[in-house]
Amino acid sequence: MAENNEYKFLSKINYPDDLRHLPVSDLPEVCQELRRDIIKELSVNPGHLASSLGVVELTVALHYVFNTPYDRIVWDVGHQAYGHKILTGRRERFATNRKLHGLKPFPHPDESEYDTFCCGHASNSISAGLGMAVAAKLNKEKRKVVAVIGDGSMSGGLAFEGINNVSSTPNDMLIIINDNHMSIDNSVGGMRKYLLQLTTNDTYNNLRYTISRKLTDWGVLNERRRKGLIRFNNSLKSVLTRQQNIFEGMDIRYFGPMDGHDVEELVRVLTIIKDMKGPKILHINTKKGKGYAPAEKNATVWHAPGKFDFESGERLCPKTTEAIPPRFQDVFGETLLELATKNDKIVGVTPAMPTGCSMNIMMKAMPGRTFDVGIAEGHAVTFSGGMAKDGLLPFCNIYSSFMQRAYDNLIHDVASMRLNMVLCLDRAGLVGEDGPTHHGVFDLAYLRPIPDITVSSPLNEIELRNLMYTAQLPDKGTFVIRYPRGRGSVVEWRKDFEEVEVGKGRVLRDGDDLAVLSFGPIGTEVSKAIDMCNTDGRSLSVAHYDMRFLKPIDTEILHEVGRKFKHVITVEDGVICGGLGDAVLEFMSDNGYDVSVRRVGVPDKFVEHGTVKELYGIVGMDAESLSRLMSETLSK
Amino acid sequence: MAENNEYKFLSKINYPDDLRHLPVSDLPEVCQELRRDIIKELSVNPGHLASSLGVVELTVALHYVFNTPYDRIVWDVGHQAYGHKILTGRRERFATNRKLHGLKPFPHPDESEYDTFCCGHASNSISAGLGMAVAAKLNKEKRKVVAVIGDGSMSGGLAFEGINNVSSTPNDMLIIINDNHMSIDNSVGGMRKYLLQLTTNDTYNNLRYTISRKLTDWGVLNERRRKGLIRFNNSLKSVLTRQQNIFEGMDIRYFGPMDGHDVEELVRVLTIIKDMKGPKILHINTKKGKGYAPAEKNATVWHAPGKFDFESGERLCPKTTEAIPPRFQDVFGETLLELATKNDKIVGVTPAMPTGCSMNIMMKAMPGRTFDVGIAEGHAVTFSGGMAKDGLLPFCNIYSSFMQRAYDNLIHDVASMRLNMVLCLDRAGLVGEDGPTHHGVFDLAYLRPIPDITVSSPLNEIELRNLMYTAQLPDKGTFVIRYPRGRGSVVEWRKDFEEVEVGKGRVLRDGDDLAVLSFGPIGTEVSKAIDMCNTDGRSLSVAHYDMRFLKPIDTEILHEVGRKFKHVITVEDGVICGGLGDAVLEFMSDNGYDVSVRRVGVPDKFVEHGTVKELYGIVGMDAESLSRLMSETLSK
Repeated sequence: MAENNEYKFLSKINYPDDLRHLPVSDLPEVCQELRRDIIKELSVNPGHLASSLGVVELTVALHYVFNTPYDRIVWDVGHQAYGHKILTGRRERFATNRKLHGLKPFPHPDESEYDTFCCGHASNSISAGLGMAVAAKLNKEKRKVVAVIGDGSMSGGLAFEGINNVSSTPNDMLIIINDNHMSIDNSVGGMRKYLLQLTTNDTYNNLRYTISRKLTDWGVLNERRRKGLIRFNNSLKSVLTRQQNIFEGMDIRYFGPMDGHDVEELVRVLTIIKDMKGPKILHINTKKGKGYAPAEKNATVWHAPGKFDFESGERLCPKTTEAIPPRFQDVFGETLLELATKNDKIVGVTPAMPTGCSMNIMMKAMPGRTFDVGIAEGHAVTFSGGMAKDGLLPFCNIYSSFMQRAYDNLIHDVASMRLNMVLCLDRAGLVGEDGPTHHGVFDLAYLRPIPDITVSSPLNEIELRNLMYTAQLPDKGTFVIRYPRGRGSVVEWRKDFEEVEVGKGRVLRDGDDLAVLSFGPIGTEVSKAIDMCNTDGRSLSVAHYDMRFLKPIDTEILHEVGRKFKHVITVEDGVICGGLGDAVLEFMSDNGYDVSVRRVGVPDKFVEHGTVKELYGIVGMDAESLSRLMSETLSK
Repeated sequence: MAENNEYKFLSKINYPDDLRHLPVSDLPEVCQELRRDIIKELSVNPGHLASSLGVVELTVALHYVFNTPYDRIVWDVGHQAYGHKILTGRRERFATNRKLHGLKPFPHPDESEYDTFCCGHASNSISAGLGMAVAAKLNKEKRKVVAVIGDGSMSGGLAFEGINNVSSTPNDMLIIINDNHMSIDNSVGGMRKYLLQLTTNDTYNNLRYTISRKLTDWGVLNERRRKGLIRFNNSLKSVLTRQQNIFEGMDIRYFGPMDGHDVEELVRVLTIIKDMKGPKILHINTKKGKGYAPAEKNATVWHAPGKFDFESGERLCPKTTEAIPPRFQDVFGETLLELATKNDKIVGVTPAMPTGCSMNIMMKAMPGRTFDVGIAEGHAVTFSGGMAKDGLLPFCNIYSSFMQRAYDNLIHDVASMRLNMVLCLDRAGLVGEDGPTHHGVFDLAYLRPIPDITVSSPLNEIELRNLMYTAQLPDKGTFVIRYPRGRGSVVEWRKDFEEVEVGKGRVLRDGDDLAVLSFGPIGTEVSKAIDMCNTDGRSLSVAHYDMRFLKPIDTEILHEVGRKFKHVITVEDGVICGGLGDAVLEFMSDNGYDVSVRRVGVPDKFVEHGTVKELYGIVGMDAESLSRLMSETLSK
């Protein structure tokens, strides 16, 4: 926490109630201090910067006008909620944000009564808020409910389903559309255009012009009639504004757009509309990164910038002269372009993550063959299905935990037709500081039951390239490749492509006492663990198989293991039930092998945030724990 | 198939090409014959009637104007596609529709090249069609793509995500909004209102009136100016129509609304707009059940009416004087109302299935506490989460296969906060004639990995009531109850409620040779199978455990089974991997029991349609197969 003497107001605000005792005229200074505090904190404790800066005034105004926590503020995507945390009793602990056992990365009711709902995934605030508004009505509570949603989140189908129902369910909720023209990358889609149109309000302008001209043509526009005309214009404006607006067309009152950085004006408007009956929308314009020049200039880079120098705005990237392994996402991005250059059927699809998954590399080179569909995972998959059906070969890249939103699309719109497409799941497994909403740990369990698909994961960067190469060869069907956040293990990764036989794993190391079967890059921890088994006085003969495919699984390896070993350990960076471990249990049971199988994976609970290393240690998936387990298994 | 002499035109139309040789003036008669054919066929071979009747003219016009199958027609929900099937080479086989090995219940590319995409689940046609339109552009094909979507399907988030992207992706597709004011029940939500508003076009009407009155007030409206005024009105209309329309606001050209039952006019309009560049929407009004009076009168009942008398329109419900067990859905519906009467925190939520899940019973009695949210499964769950967060107790009822659309909502918006809500999954397991898109077979596999939830299934109607009763008691957390389509096994089901201990199964029958563990109503088949083991000369001592909970699973039973038996059979009406069988394998492995486990479930492929009885036979889950398996297991 920074020195309090820098913070005349903030040092005295522990809870929103303290804020509410200030006169409105002090709020601009509160905002300035809050912004400074966020920037300073983030410069040393990395987190999400740009979006939180964009809503400083909104955050202050909401807690000032509404009686939180009795009134409900439902944030959509918790990136932006740092100001909210600081104002709601968490300033002292803010330096622990995103750290193991520290403040959660996204608001969650377990942490604070001011956090009304889980908000790691986009587009849920309207539906959740509507639920709370209906509950208030049925429980005869006078509480207000405010859902805040960004224009980026508005492209998600869930947000639309929410709006669609807000209009037909009795409620008094307020929806604030925070329009910054971005999700993490730039916003896309028709709703974006539509919101812009609301801003410029061309209908009204055009029509006023036409009418004036007509009336002048007809010689009826004289001084006496001018006042009448102004009145007429106003009523015309209200008629038009009401009617041209999809929200008003759905019987939701619409206000705005207004400047979201004018805190006093925000307070004035919110105070007026908060007691109005029925649902209403307030549309505000804000700037991501507002108030910090480097972040304003490039909000995508400053979405989560890492450490930086507060004064100069220089990002402090760890410098090293050593060559280090690349990020998996970059191997994906560069390999995709390489493949697409040779195979003109390849197209790329991303739901709002071109930078996050590095598809921006292909997007820059081949804009006509790359599609950022906005925050819309379901559409991303079904749209890919449509393209695949007519002969293109989509590489659709979705973060593993967000893929939970396109489960039916994969089953119904792709797998049921055995379409040739490649689904790349980035951020698979434990992701670290982004915590439980972002851990991509369910995918193996929910993918394995889907008929006719291939589910693979590379041990390292070279394998990722080879799997991508293989997946785009003719008639490979629906091909899933999952890989984690962060860096791999191989510096020299730009090797020539080699086709991988689908359904074939490989022996990484022979051994006699124990077989370890791993899936994906977690195999690197297994390798280290086996090394340890032979360097600290122990001497275990451990075989290591990199399964490479969860489905179809390599039955040749499994027969070999079943015949040769009494003890098997399976290791996967996913939930402990439903994935590799169960597949091995099934096989051994179905084939009558008498082996003891010890399954290592993510335990059956929501695993909190921390560094990936810390979390691996906690769940027993780091090299040390695995090595210990190997010894234990053999000492039984 | 009906006699061909009734069908002057239809008897000669095998493919759309035959249709295209007719003059437009013959099309009304073609439509009449097609409608008659559909009604006659469905009177003896039950299927989906009302929606197919509603699109007879549209179907004829589309195949007449567009060069199918080169051009792509993408249907949204295949209920309506019977006319399409009859016109595309499947008239002879139409009597096999929905029967085992017969025509598929919904269009599917495996069956016909005229079926462009899988269409069992609603709202996917725009996204899939956009994929095809983009593929056409990139492949330099001249083909046209038409997506047909009902106003009911428009409430689904996927449809919105599709529209949102249609507007920002270069394409020439045509979207036809088939507006019949219904899904299966009545349509709901803001989009519904909005479409109606487009129809009445109040803005234009109001403004024209206001302007005329003003001009008259000012004494400027004389004969000389009347022509100018009409011109002005027209331009006003065009300005307004363009601007008030969300679709045009998204840069999608909008045409309509027009009468969807005027086939000649449809042909005229489609011919004009089909070659226009850029995306466009044609909005047509149709009537579900059109042309068959009983179906027009009550389209919900006539959605899938069963057999009926063609002439009188009387539905031929099987008559019996014997008391028969109720449908599970009705037990749900009546029990829900009973519980809601006593527990005022209970609310009901259904995504467009009030009739299908029998929530209409509570809806009628307690309209303020029941929410039909439209086809919007994601919202249904998140909205329930919001209500649960603020103290209500939602019973959210979703068909199991549609729940695939709300997977992330359940994880992120409910389970992660351990909210008290009840998720009832109707149509779980193999559903019969609706086929692979509707089989609710993945749920056990995708639910079991979710931390902190309860997953249960009742053996019979009485158990369903008791589980529902238990689930609404205080602090039961997130409680899933899954049950199948169709009737149960108990006639006298209205018993007093009894609380069920969460995580506790029960012994239905003791035995010594073999233990069978079943989950849900499939246990009834198991009971029959065990009976058979003792009536046909065999004498096997088979124990039967009704697990009742998949999660938390009854470890006491499992320990007992592990200690006592060498042979275990698990039976579940769900995919073979990830569910009960795997849970038992895990337990036996983790606890070192040496038992052979034979898992019975739905095999790892998309199981086709047929009666449930037929399908149980095919997958080896009927009493005969199970009884055989029991003998085989013990003879090893």
